[in-house]
Amino acid sequence: MIIAVLGPKGSYTEKAAIKWLAENSSEDNYSIEYCNDIQDVFSSLTSGSVDVGITPVENSIEGSVGVTLDMLLESELSIIGETVVTIEHCLLSKGKKEDIRIILSHPQGLAQCRQFLKDHFKDAELRTTGSTSHAARLATEFSEMAAIASRESAQMYDLNILIPNIQDREQNHTRFLIMTKPGDMSECKRHPCKTSIIVYLDRDRPGALYEILGEFASRNINLSRIESRPSKRALGDYVFYIDFEGHISDEIIKDAIYNIESKVGMLKVLGSYPMYGQIE
Amino acid sequence: MIIAVLGPKGSYTEKAAIKWLAENSSEDNYSIEYCNDIQDVFSSLTSGSVDVGITPVENSIEGSVGVTLDMLLESELSIIGETVVTIEHCLLSKGKKEDIRIILSHPQGLAQCRQFLKDHFKDAELRTTGSTSHAARLATEFSEMAAIASRESAQMYDLNILIPNIQDREQNHTRFLIMTKPGDMSECKRHPCKTSIIVYLDRDRPGALYEILGEFASRNINLSRIESRPSKRALGDYVFYIDFEGHISDEIIKDAIYNIESKVGMLKVLGSYPMYGQIE
Repeated sequence: MIIAVLGPKGSYTEKAAIKWLAENSSEDNYSIEYCNDIQDVFSSLTSGSVDVGITPVENSIEGSVGVTLDMLLESELSIIGETVVTIEHCLLSKGKKEDIRIILSHPQGLAQCRQFLKDHFKDAELRTTGSTSHAARLATEFSEMAAIASRESAQMYDLNILIPNIQDREQNHTRFLIMTKPGDMSECKRHPCKTSIIVYLDRDRPGALYEILGEFASRNINLSRIESRPSKRALGDYVFYIDFEGHISDEIIKDAIYNIESKVGMLKVLGSYPMYGQIE
Repeated sequence: MIIAVLGPKGSYTEKAAIKWLAENSSEDNYSIEYCNDIQDVFSSLTSGSVDVGITPVENSIEGSVGVTLDMLLESELSIIGETVVTIEHCLLSKGKKEDIRIILSHPQGLAQCRQFLKDHFKDAELRTTGSTSHAARLATEFSEMAAIASRESAQMYDLNILIPNIQDREQNHTRFLIMTKPGDMSECKRHPCKTSIIVYLDRDRPGALYEILGEFASRNINLSRIESRPSKRALGDYVFYIDFEGHISDEIIKDAIYNIESKVGMLKVLGSYPMYGQIE
């Protein structure tokens, strides 16, 4: 099994991969492919060069990872699992705190530490990278550079932890999706499951979202998440990403989906997969 | 009247300010204060050093501007208007296309041109700035730097337009909010109006969102937008930003709000203001 994650070594996505393998599989025979960015994880998966792709989908401070949501709409794949990783961003450098002029991280890393950066490094130049571990690797080049990345990255790239735990809220978790090429969505061996769909509502139909949610409510199906993304057709036009409890092979879920399909412009089922336990 | 926008001169927010003034006011006696970033626009407004603050809230390609949504929750202010600006990002530099090694823009600018950057400048270093016009001003320093910014910024900072219209979709619009310190929300002189609220649902109450939307649907109140943001308390815990047609002083809206308040953990009214015409 080849698993695509954000690279290089030491990314939070790699951590998610190892965590998910430990939680879900007795698979020992795997190799990791390190990708430059989230789009490349999706490309590797759809081109067939890897078996499994893992990307972040939402963070408890900064919210949705837009590029992952967009690629879920554009790509043909199935979500087969999810996992949650505790994020503890540190400021890493080979230099000293007073030398830092340039700070590098993934855009989500920068955003999760927005207030910290404003308070302590107001004049620093901010650079974005494809992953936090890539930022750490680049920070080895000059002592005026620092990366926002994990504690493990410090060790891996021989950097000093100038300041630990720098995100704007102490609690910081990221949820990752585990994806494969589209497969048969047969019954889940592990319970409880959740199902993820994308719907595009008919925008000239007021109350359409309410009607859709009604199909879930009337069947006592719990929604765990609803998120809008631009349809990219026009401002104010959205697609909705909905996660709910239950498996696509359950009669009640099939029935809900059947009824929703008749009410929307587009419905895409992304997959049914074991739910990760609720994080407090 | 002092109006805070993203600076320096030539930002899309400044364009929004001028457009909104032309559309809504006979006010000729105003001055512009240029802020470093979105947070500073909010600080200037809440500290009382300016009368009006303007920031972007959503874009038709990249979606919500997270920091604006977060600041709307944290700050005490009223939304008094909105306007929409057509975005035409260009690649600006004083150098030549083949010299470009560094590309600067606001994180939204970089994200709106994600595919373009991947296709044409895969190895360029990406730097984030507080605004697109700030990126343009910085790009005047070295010919190996380019900014993603407006056509007007090219003229203002004497840069060449290396490539025009580089965003990933041709249609690109950003909606901006016009805000003041909290005021009386008396009746709007101009119609139609919309109202913006934030609600925090009781997470242990399944179907809560459906119930809230029902309060609007049963009164035939049209929703124009619903957006979730992390509550930042825990992963999977959200606040919802809801925009709907009608003014807070309308009896039917007052009644809906009254009923919603009894069902949610928190409800904050951000303001009622004239709706910008629908953009196609």
